[in-house]
Amino acid sequence: MCQLLGMNCNTPTDICFSFEGFSARGGKTDDHSDGWGIAFFEEKGCRIFIDDKPSIVSPVADLVRRYPIHSNHVIAHIRKATQGEVRLQNCHPFQRELWGRYWVFAHNGNLPDFQPENMGFYQAVGETDSEKAFCVILETLRQSFPQGKPPLEKLYPVLRTITAKLASAGVFNYLLSDGEHFFAHCSTKLSYIVRQAPFAAAHLIDSDMTVDFRELTSLSDRVAIIATTPLTDNEVWTTIPIGELLVFQDGLPLEV
Amino acid sequence: MCQLLGMNCNTPTDICFSFEGFSARGGKTDDHSDGWGIAFFEEKGCRIFIDDKPSIVSPVADLVRRYPIHSNHVIAHIRKATQGEVRLQNCHPFQRELWGRYWVFAHNGNLPDFQPENMGFYQAVGETDSEKAFCVILETLRQSFPQGKPPLEKLYPVLRTITAKLASAGVFNYLLSDGEHFFAHCSTKLSYIVRQAPFAAAHLIDSDMTVDFRELTSLSDRVAIIATTPLTDNEVWTTIPIGELLVFQDGLPLEV
Repeated sequence: MCQLLGMNCNTPTDICFSFEGFSARGGKTDDHSDGWGIAFFEEKGCRIFIDDKPSIVSPVADLVRRYPIHSNHVIAHIRKATQGEVRLQNCHPFQRELWGRYWVFAHNGNLPDFQPENMGFYQAVGETDSEKAFCVILETLRQSFPQGKPPLEKLYPVLRTITAKLASAGVFNYLLSDGEHFFAHCSTKLSYIVRQAPFAAAHLIDSDMTVDFRELTSLSDRVAIIATTPLTDNEVWTTIPIGELLVFQDGLPLEV
Repeated sequence: MCQLLGMNCNTPTDICFSFEGFSARGGKTDDHSDGWGIAFFEEKGCRIFIDDKPSIVSPVADLVRRYPIHSNHVIAHIRKATQGEVRLQNCHPFQRELWGRYWVFAHNGNLPDFQPENMGFYQAVGETDSEKAFCVILETLRQSFPQGKPPLEKLYPVLRTITAKLASAGVFNYLLSDGEHFFAHCSTKLSYIVRQAPFAAAHLIDSDMTVDFRELTSLSDRVAIIATTPLTDNEVWTTIPIGELLVFQDGLPLEV
């Protein structure tokens, strides 16, 4: 299994605080030490940092902890290998282009019963079930909407159907974003919190660190943090129901 | 215009020395300060660092200068914007997947007369002529060989033909790799050097720094460095003839 961390917000925000706690799980407070990765959308652009070293010793993770990159959509992952060796090509998040946008995907779980059919256009580079499932999702979206990205109310049911089909092959918690919408699927375990005014202080579980968001935010800021398990011990996190596919935009789950 | 740096070698090697001189051109010894990027292949995996800050002040470039990542195929780029604003989505190198491998591309030049037809599968995310040209190259390769990557002697003439067509629309120096073969096209300006035993010391042009490769290499090592203009002032670089498309493998240009 692995662990997921996501952020979706209404104004570009850095993820240094959450990543401090999250990355400790990659070999310090937990044993997810088979590589890690993080993707930041900046407008339509996207940059991904991946490393097959544990996140607590990776010089790249150290950069991400120290260098505040401001983004509206962030997806991070620390890996505990199930399928596929500890290699760079098996590190999440994965990225592909669809409809002239980058799509980014990270998976927590294992799909032992997943036998993908002919992939069509998208092919996996590495050996993980996760990357293959991502290819199947994008292939399904592309074939369903060959003309380009449809409105969310048309895209959502197609994504929900292929997600349910893939989830039936095992455990399939995932985060997915194209820099416009942010999808979070709970197969077994996923939580989120929305931080907005009035802001308060938050204290990490995995590291003795507190941030007072009142000093760092403006009144209109809104940030959703999504994680496999809560990252703070003094805030109320919402458990996403099993089987639910949430869509976040501007820091809030949408009603679709 | 921009500047290109590439490395192809027979054993995974770090590019810290060459990148030290090259990245100085991103705002210190030259004015290519509209972003930069570098891609490292590690087996089939690939990691790309991009930043829209000048490479001399970018914290990410600082990491790349200090953290020795060992790779057989490296492509780096510093940007001086012609088409497309200074934004992350316009930073080279660009990456796409074809035939189950990542392909990475960086361009020096400008294609003012390039009016791409329908892109087919691959679409550009940013606004550069460079990314559109890359999409046209991959589309051409995919359509020519729908079953998968052909032997080099079949791939090469197709790549050469589409390259010549694109180059006729302007200036089209580029580096392209899929982690197996490394292509370098000279439209106006591109040089290379092959370092192999007996090794010697090299001194950078853009920074007062010398490395004695005798202390860092083994007898069988072979490294080709490809750059817009030579990076060292005490070695003999080979100018690639205009219109030439070279293929490097294991640190040597192949006869195709």
